[in-house]
Amino acid sequence: MNGSTGASRKPTIRDVAAAAGVSHGTVSRVINGGHWVSPEARDAVDRAIRETGYTANHAARSLATGRSNSLAFLLTEPQHLLFADPTFALLLRGATEALAQRSMTLVLMIADTAAERANVERYVRAGHVDGVLLISSHESNPLLASLISAGVPTVCTGVPLGDRAHVPTVSVDEQESARIMTRHLLSRGHRRIAVITGPDDTPGGRYRLQGFREEMGDLFDPELVEQDVYSSDAGAAAMTRLLERAPDIDAVFAASDVMAVGAIAAIRRSGRRVPDDIAVAGFDDSGLAATHDPPLTTMRQPWNEISSAMVDMVLQVIAGGDPEPLVLPTSLIVRETA
Amino acid sequence: MNGSTGASRKPTIRDVAAAAGVSHGTVSRVINGGHWVSPEARDAVDRAIRETGYTANHAARSLATGRSNSLAFLLTEPQHLLFADPTFALLLRGATEALAQRSMTLVLMIADTAAERANVERYVRAGHVDGVLLISSHESNPLLASLISAGVPTVCTGVPLGDRAHVPTVSVDEQESARIMTRHLLSRGHRRIAVITGPDDTPGGRYRLQGFREEMGDLFDPELVEQDVYSSDAGAAAMTRLLERAPDIDAVFAASDVMAVGAIAAIRRSGRRVPDDIAVAGFDDSGLAATHDPPLTTMRQPWNEISSAMVDMVLQVIAGGDPEPLVLPTSLIVRETA
Repeated sequence: MNGSTGASRKPTIRDVAAAAGVSHGTVSRVINGGHWVSPEARDAVDRAIRETGYTANHAARSLATGRSNSLAFLLTEPQHLLFADPTFALLLRGATEALAQRSMTLVLMIADTAAERANVERYVRAGHVDGVLLISSHESNPLLASLISAGVPTVCTGVPLGDRAHVPTVSVDEQESARIMTRHLLSRGHRRIAVITGPDDTPGGRYRLQGFREEMGDLFDPELVEQDVYSSDAGAAAMTRLLERAPDIDAVFAASDVMAVGAIAAIRRSGRRVPDDIAVAGFDDSGLAATHDPPLTTMRQPWNEISSAMVDMVLQVIAGGDPEPLVLPTSLIVRETA
Repeated sequence: MNGSTGASRKPTIRDVAAAAGVSHGTVSRVINGGHWVSPEARDAVDRAIRETGYTANHAARSLATGRSNSLAFLLTEPQHLLFADPTFALLLRGATEALAQRSMTLVLMIADTAAERANVERYVRAGHVDGVLLISSHESNPLLASLISAGVPTVCTGVPLGDRAHVPTVSVDEQESARIMTRHLLSRGHRRIAVITGPDDTPGGRYRLQGFREEMGDLFDPELVEQDVYSSDAGAAAMTRLLERAPDIDAVFAASDVMAVGAIAAIRRSGRRVPDDIAVAGFDDSGLAATHDPPLTTMRQPWNEISSAMVDMVLQVIAGGDPEPLVLPTSLIVRETA
């Protein structure tokens, strides 16, 4: 965890300032929430903190402020998804590292049922954590509204659907990402492109389909759309239905790598080859995209940037700030399946 | 989460008592820590709580006692193991369910590095959790000693090696479990049985090897022993080394299912078949044992009982009790690999 510089002396805030090329005060503002700091300076300080191995001493501050020096990583999904969907592990790792740099503790909590939500809300409102990283993409998540109305500093992944202008969020540009991948598939000569999208009450499910549809234009065929949950089994079942309806499909764009892996299994079971007969594109660039055989072409979400930005933003809220929603770009990763 | 009985009325403590066939006071003692309750009565109450869907109202008690109504599930391993080793997910699920029955919250914390241990210890000692379920099997885990000496109610999985007579633990009979599996392999006619055991500073690594050795008697051959970490890659590498040294191996006993899966891959790469040429036995009965192709023969650890006993015991400690260490039996699950 300590990217030690080799010196045995413990790095100080001045070492971080020197490495980042900024003032001592700027480093201090970043560590204490990043308020009134430019994104460029924040990035430079974050990098310098990693390089020097600096860790803040929050213990003394904790005594003075009554804070717990901890954030909750709050997952509002069934527990098994934490283990089935590799994107949660990527977010968790990034958040853990961002907190370790600040000598803060991450506590992971799962609130799927109404009873669990009530328990978690009580725990959070009692001040056992200073803020919440809400890992949720489903619309009308009741926990988000109640945390916000209770004044609990909360930052959310994904753009919440519905009227929630005042929730700080970190998300990627879903629609543009889907357009980039669709353009890639078109540029490879595919014309009968199917899409397997996620639930309509998630921004990924809704906006990726929108981007795909726009980019396809006249080639868009509603027969080639399937919608399901983000699981491998769901991806396989959706692909099977698509192939029964439209055996001439030459490419498929799945809204997650996990779904893409399921779709590939279904394509193989139908006696077709990937990518020779049908090209397959995923979304996320979670760990399995690179290790899958063959490696998946996918849209990479900037997992480390998402989680460290969430930590920065919730610390800004704790410090009294009101950060703007942040939308991060994704990148096309061309491997072997499309 | 609510195993509702079909009635719309919320189940009360009296419903639980009626279903369990015990007194109201016994149910109350189980919910508040299980002190002065026989194991049989505790089991009956736990079952009745599940059946009736009863959840305790701890909110009022929390105000009175200053407790947080939460326990930490504290993993002292690198974060990636949480996702790579399915046994942690099984323990986490069991603990979550046991706490949900009591309207308590589970917070998961990871403390692998010294800096993380310091942060977690500060958080726990500040009273943000009422007790700790320490998920650790490595010898001389410094966190265990410091939590105990700080008076933090703590229960540990596995029998800690070394002089720690006063730590409440929940474990399985490692040595006897290994003897049972070894007897099974011998009964199938195998004589050149190799063992791939875990790290020597874990009870599983040390005592499973001891049980194997005792049961093998004169057939024990030190050439057929490999020791490594509990990962699939390690299992594969160990198996490759074994086959190079002793091509006449006819069975292998791996100290975890994950290791067994790696061993099977290595056996196949060597051109041999499982179980026709070499039988393979695992340990744990984690989810992958049943879903692997072919399904693994293994020793089942009673994951739900382990996690719910840990919760019971730490609540006993919180209530001022001093529970005895608990050793649970395992069971032989014969599937297709041995």
